[in-house]
Amino acid sequence: MAFLALPRTESMKVAPKVLKAGLKVIDLSADYRVKSGKGYEKWYGHKHTDTKNLSKAIYGLPELFRQKIKTANFIANPGCYPTAAILGLAPLIATRRDIQSIVVDAKSGVSGAGRKASLGLLFPEANENFKAYKVLSHQHAPEIEQYLSQLAGKATHIHFVAHLLPITRGILNTMYVQLKEGITLNQAHSLYKKFYKMEPFVRLHPLGNQPETKNVANTNFCDLGVGVSSDKKMVVITSAIDNLVKGAAGQAVQNMNIMYGFNEIEGLL
Amino acid sequence: MAFLALPRTESMKVAPKVLKAGLKVIDLSADYRVKSGKGYEKWYGHKHTDTKNLSKAIYGLPELFRQKIKTANFIANPGCYPTAAILGLAPLIATRRDIQSIVVDAKSGVSGAGRKASLGLLFPEANENFKAYKVLSHQHAPEIEQYLSQLAGKATHIHFVAHLLPITRGILNTMYVQLKEGITLNQAHSLYKKFYKMEPFVRLHPLGNQPETKNVANTNFCDLGVGVSSDKKMVVITSAIDNLVKGAAGQAVQNMNIMYGFNEIEGLL
Amino acid sequence: MAFLALPRTESMKVAPKVLKAGLKVIDLSADYRVKSGKGYEKWYGHKHTDTKNLSKAIYGLPELFRQKIKTANFIANPGCYPTAAILGLAPLIATRRDIQSIVVDAKSGVSGAGRKASLGLLFPEANENFKAYKVLSHQHAPEIEQYLSQLAGKATHIHFVAHLLPITRGILNTMYVQLKEGITLNQAHSLYKKFYKMEPFVRLHPLGNQPETKNVANTNFCDLGVGVSSDKKMVVITSAIDNLVKGAAGQAVQNMNIMYGFNEIEGLL
Amino acid sequence: MAFLALPRTESMKVAPKVLKAGLKVIDLSADYRVKSGKGYEKWYGHKHTDTKNLSKAIYGLPELFRQKIKTANFIANPGCYPTAAILGLAPLIATRRDIQSIVVDAKSGVSGAGRKASLGLLFPEANENFKAYKVLSHQHAPEIEQYLSQLAGKATHIHFVAHLLPITRGILNTMYVQLKEGITLNQAHSLYKKFYKMEPFVRLHPLGNQPETKNVANTNFCDLGVGVSSDKKMVVITSAIDNLVKGAAGQAVQNMNIMYGFNEIEGLL
Repeated sequence: MAFLALPRTESMKVAPKVLKAGLKVIDLSADYRVKSGKGYEKWYGHKHTDTKNLSKAIYGLPELFRQKIKTANFIANPGCYPTAAILGLAPLIATRRDIQSIVVDAKSGVSGAGRKASLGLLFPEANENFKAYKVLSHQHAPEIEQYLSQLAGKATHIHFVAHLLPITRGILNTMYVQLKEGITLNQAHSLYKKFYKMEPFVRLHPLGNQPETKNVANTNFCDLGVGVSSDKKMVVITSAIDNLVKGAAGQAVQNMNIMYGFNEIEGLL
Repeated sequence: MAFLALPRTESMKVAPKVLKAGLKVIDLSADYRVKSGKGYEKWYGHKHTDTKNLSKAIYGLPELFRQKIKTANFIANPGCYPTAAILGLAPLIATRRDIQSIVVDAKSGVSGAGRKASLGLLFPEANENFKAYKVLSHQHAPEIEQYLSQLAGKATHIHFVAHLLPITRGILNTMYVQLKEGITLNQAHSLYKKFYKMEPFVRLHPLGNQPETKNVANTNFCDLGVGVSSDKKMVVITSAIDNLVKGAAGQAVQNMNIMYGFNEIEGLL
Repeated sequence: MAFLALPRTESMKVAPKVLKAGLKVIDLSADYRVKSGKGYEKWYGHKHTDTKNLSKAIYGLPELFRQKIKTANFIANPGCYPTAAILGLAPLIATRRDIQSIVVDAKSGVSGAGRKASLGLLFPEANENFKAYKVLSHQHAPEIEQYLSQLAGKATHIHFVAHLLPITRGILNTMYVQLKEGITLNQAHSLYKKFYKMEPFVRLHPLGNQPETKNVANTNFCDLGVGVSSDKKMVVITSAIDNLVKGAAGQAVQNMNIMYGFNEIEGLL
Repeated sequence: MAFLALPRTESMKVAPKVLKAGLKVIDLSADYRVKSGKGYEKWYGHKHTDTKNLSKAIYGLPELFRQKIKTANFIANPGCYPTAAILGLAPLIATRRDIQSIVVDAKSGVSGAGRKASLGLLFPEANENFKAYKVLSHQHAPEIEQYLSQLAGKATHIHFVAHLLPITRGILNTMYVQLKEGITLNQAHSLYKKFYKMEPFVRLHPLGNQPETKNVANTNFCDLGVGVSSDKKMVVITSAIDNLVKGAAGQAVQNMNIMYGFNEIEGLL
């Protein structure tokens, strides 16, 4: 099999050949995550040149698509922000209750931008600084919306704002889900507990406690915290991952383990 | 006159005496910001022992209350999160349009917690880390709601989540206002431009550009950025201040300048 | 057996009882490292109350004392600065050549000070800052001198200055050894290569290359670099360790592995 | 007049023309600091193409060369490491006592490397890391040696090692001077006190106290601390500056003030 760690637009040139040669592929680029070729073109500014395989690639988020991954030949490994966002929102969205709005306030460490020599990523620029970027226009939003819509059984929209944290590795998303019908904090917490009870890499924090990026650094864990407003209609979920592990290479290994019938946690705990 | 830089509950013991002695007072504690004695007790866990002066203290946010500050003898200097939140929300709230929900996703550097020897504030705990805290239960939320309600002319509620940033100084709030009737990005930006056009310490970023904490560090500025969703119903405002300057001592000096008829920017630019 | 992770002066109360009960002890405090009771009193300001066991404790630096550790019942686990300093200087000192002066310019991350709520260790104090402390008066200097003197076969003095780095974990010592008779860079590098060729946890960098704290973080490695001045009489050695692993708990585990005949790298690689 | 903030080798093309046009020049590059054309070629790898002006340029370190700066038309503004090193060593060297060796263990924040998009200066590379670089081969060493030799009245050599600190701005040099004849701590401290007693930008710390980079950040100060070994033969000096101010632009303004007869501290305090 092949792990493809290529820049976007390079993957879609190489993947078809590798697949044709009969190898299994786990692609770490963004080329096969958004299923609509038009959507890809809109957000990434390039025409998709391998729409045939685009529809075949399985989204490699094991907590949601483990069965499909088991028999897949071709995996689109999820983005870092989407992994943290979808895992944090899935239990609530999957109940298919009426939702009025979803805000994803996302914060990422500098390694999330990739290892490229860019002025904005220099130590003196990022250190002792914090800012928002790509406000309501981040290319990861449609990836998140696509899989939330599948879960919800209907078109689901999010408001996504990315921020640059002065840390090397780590993502923490704070997500605000406005409900039509209220839910108690205990109900919300139980919902999450049940949803992830068998998952080796999702850890739900106890009531009143919140995840920290430090606790997931260098691990494949996604840590979650749940809060509910006093009127019960606003659910706040915080989710933390290491963008380089559960948000990238670690998740790719987890997918490989599943595809080959290995123990899913092999090499990851 | 006297600047009171005392811990909460100490100010309300000292302030009445200083006022009685005929001095003007600018109080930097939280003792005189929330106007309801019951509200104070609920959020701070102590009975308010000087409710007489509580009602007299003017909230020292010059951009909103400059006329009252001019003739005031007693100023309650705003909290750091509230300064960034209220300045960011005021222009939109003051239009009194229908608002469905307000999220304040607030992030503060470590100096915001005060200079106390606490384990959670040690370098090895805060460095290379990021977390939410006091989810939907921060004591600054009622302070923000009180003054937004005044501006809106009706009870106005926010969903407030605080986060701890691994920087020494700086606050950045990302605020999401869900409207009933849409607004274009240009309309929103113009609204902010007009509201603050005469303000020496508020700088509105150009369209598409966002504030950074680094640009306000060691200054009395509040920098603002505005975004609007494609359906025009979600307005995103980012606001940045130095929590130790515009969020504390700098704002106190600005208030003093106003109270004494000095040039408002004296010592601050 | 027992690992004693007690504050200094507590260990010397507890260790004698545990030893008397027949258990093996690895002591992580500074109580049994400096062999002279008078020296201990001078540097730590307390009388040593267990001088009987003081002389029996084996200094747990496996690269130098592996044979003694194998049969020891009682180990004094080395300090973090001494581990980095002694491993960096040992190959040169052990040649017993004439040395005119030794400077140890030592830099440690904040966790080296222990996890105590002290103002100087707060994030806003240590972040974006760097300073020297305990100039020529650090309590780790006599520990280093004692073991260098053993290696040199004569009294050996160092000039030691500690510095506080704005990182969580890591020590980097830069050491300057002024020789009477010159040595070439190749000779010096070969000397180090031979000295450590069988050591699982010492990694000598290639000529011209220097260790970084990042490369030893969360590991039990000590990384070394060697330089020589153009007149061949000044040798510069840089050594990097993780102060919490090779400088503390990791080295304790390595000692335990040796005492019990386990594979020395068990649990450490 | 003209401030030249050009890359090395560009300055020596432009400066002659600007000087010929009758303007005064303060050059911030390294082109005119090292007085020997051969030395320049050796350390910077380029032939010097303006040796005529090279000999005329005055080294703009006001604490040592104020009288010459007053009447100069052409200033070579000192490097950041040399400013901190020479100011720290000058009082001792100028006594012309016998010195056996000088070690300069130099540490700089990342902005010292200039604002260029280089992989090694990215936040994820420099953050939570510390390393030595250019061990005994830094191009600033000959600049330091040249001016120390002038002060000493004889050839004076240093052993210089640079390190990269995970801070944005600041240099701290720890310097070890091995003397033939001893000096007491009080004598050494008095020596420094007298040497700098009229200097507006040099602050000597009290006995036992050491400078921190944080205290000189964003200022034109050079802070100094002095220590002496118990045998009185090793003097340790620590010096701290902001590399972007006293180490560059601030010192250039100080030189301009002197050249034009302005108050030397104008715009700098």
